[in-house]
Amino acid sequence: MDSERLIKQIEFIVEVDKLKRIFRQNAIIGTIESENDAEHSWHLAVMAILLSEYSSTKELDMLRVLKMLLIHDLVEIHAGDTFCYDEKGNLDKLEREQRSADKLFNILPSDQAQEIMNLWLEFETMETPEACFAASLDRLQPLLLNYHTSGHTWKRPGINSEKVLKRNRVLEKPVPLLWEYAQEIIEDSIQKGYLRK
Amino acid sequence: MDSERLIKQIEFIVEVDKLKRIFRQNAIIGTIESENDAEHSWHLAVMAILLSEYSSTKELDMLRVLKMLLIHDLVEIHAGDTFCYDEKGNLDKLEREQRSADKLFNILPSDQAQEIMNLWLEFETMETPEACFAASLDRLQPLLLNYHTSGHTWKRPGINSEKVLKRNRVLEKPVPLLWEYAQEIIEDSIQKGYLRK
Repeated sequence: MDSERLIKQIEFIVEVDKLKRIFRQNAIIGTIESENDAEHSWHLAVMAILLSEYSSTKELDMLRVLKMLLIHDLVEIHAGDTFCYDEKGNLDKLEREQRSADKLFNILPSDQAQEIMNLWLEFETMETPEACFAASLDRLQPLLLNYHTSGHTWKRPGINSEKVLKRNRVLEKPVPLLWEYAQEIIEDSIQKGYLRK
Repeated sequence: MDSERLIKQIEFIVEVDKLKRIFRQNAIIGTIESENDAEHSWHLAVMAILLSEYSSTKELDMLRVLKMLLIHDLVEIHAGDTFCYDEKGNLDKLEREQRSADKLFNILPSDQAQEIMNLWLEFETMETPEACFAASLDRLQPLLLNYHTSGHTWKRPGINSEKVLKRNRVLEKPVPLLWEYAQEIIEDSIQKGYLRK
């Protein structure tokens, strides 16, 4: 095989296998085992397929949404998962992730490295309807997992409904009906004792 | 929340969380831990984004490819993973999976149940260029994992290079260069003692 391009692509595909061992804070429903980034990314992509009708912007470019969701956490291969309510960890999160992106994406042929970098930056900056929709699902999915694991990560010190509501307010404009649903889940979680008021 | 439609969609999204605990035969690279179907589906989708240029049919509908890859193993939630070289298990595989599909997909609103069913059947019957491309990646990915885990599943009784070549011949027409690459990996695996000749 004399294709330098394919060799780079395969090297990247092998390298990103590591995403399957980057663990998140959430537990998988029915277990106390941590979800990992590959599982999370897959789950978000399935949600995108099913929930696009709730986007306030019609005619989303769904191929770009799926690509963004599938690659949005790759940078955690080197930067690790930063818990969304970890104020200290979030101070240098973007810097760590940018270094990781440079290192990881540049395994690819340059045109594809640029494509993946652009998708990741689009997701992070949340300025396009596609990125806002994708980011909304990235909030809603952990909410669903927490709700169905009796508030697995919400039980930690310092977390309350105010913080959870603030984090999920991202849904308000891109997916108003899902924002309404998220608020109902949060309210119900308080009632059920999964989440402190 | 008074949306029967959304409630069905969310029920399905919560149900398919179970795919994260359907384990496959392959091990994750660098570990002896089994890969699961959610991780596998994610990995295939990333491969599709990067390797579409090798498709012998140009202008694939990549959105449909990604959707197929993301949902192709959902039926294993009830039917379980059937090892590709398990001759007995493969006899009633399609029947078990069809029952699982009926049970699982019909949680969704009927239009979406039909969409997911059609995507799954398209993948299974391998008659469209998109399904052939998707199925090729579904062969190549376990090959890569086996190669990078010193032939983790190839070491089992009854598996040899002839069977592995036969299974991977699916790549020949849809992605000729990747078929060439697969043959090189198989040859090298024999040399390295990962796979019996």
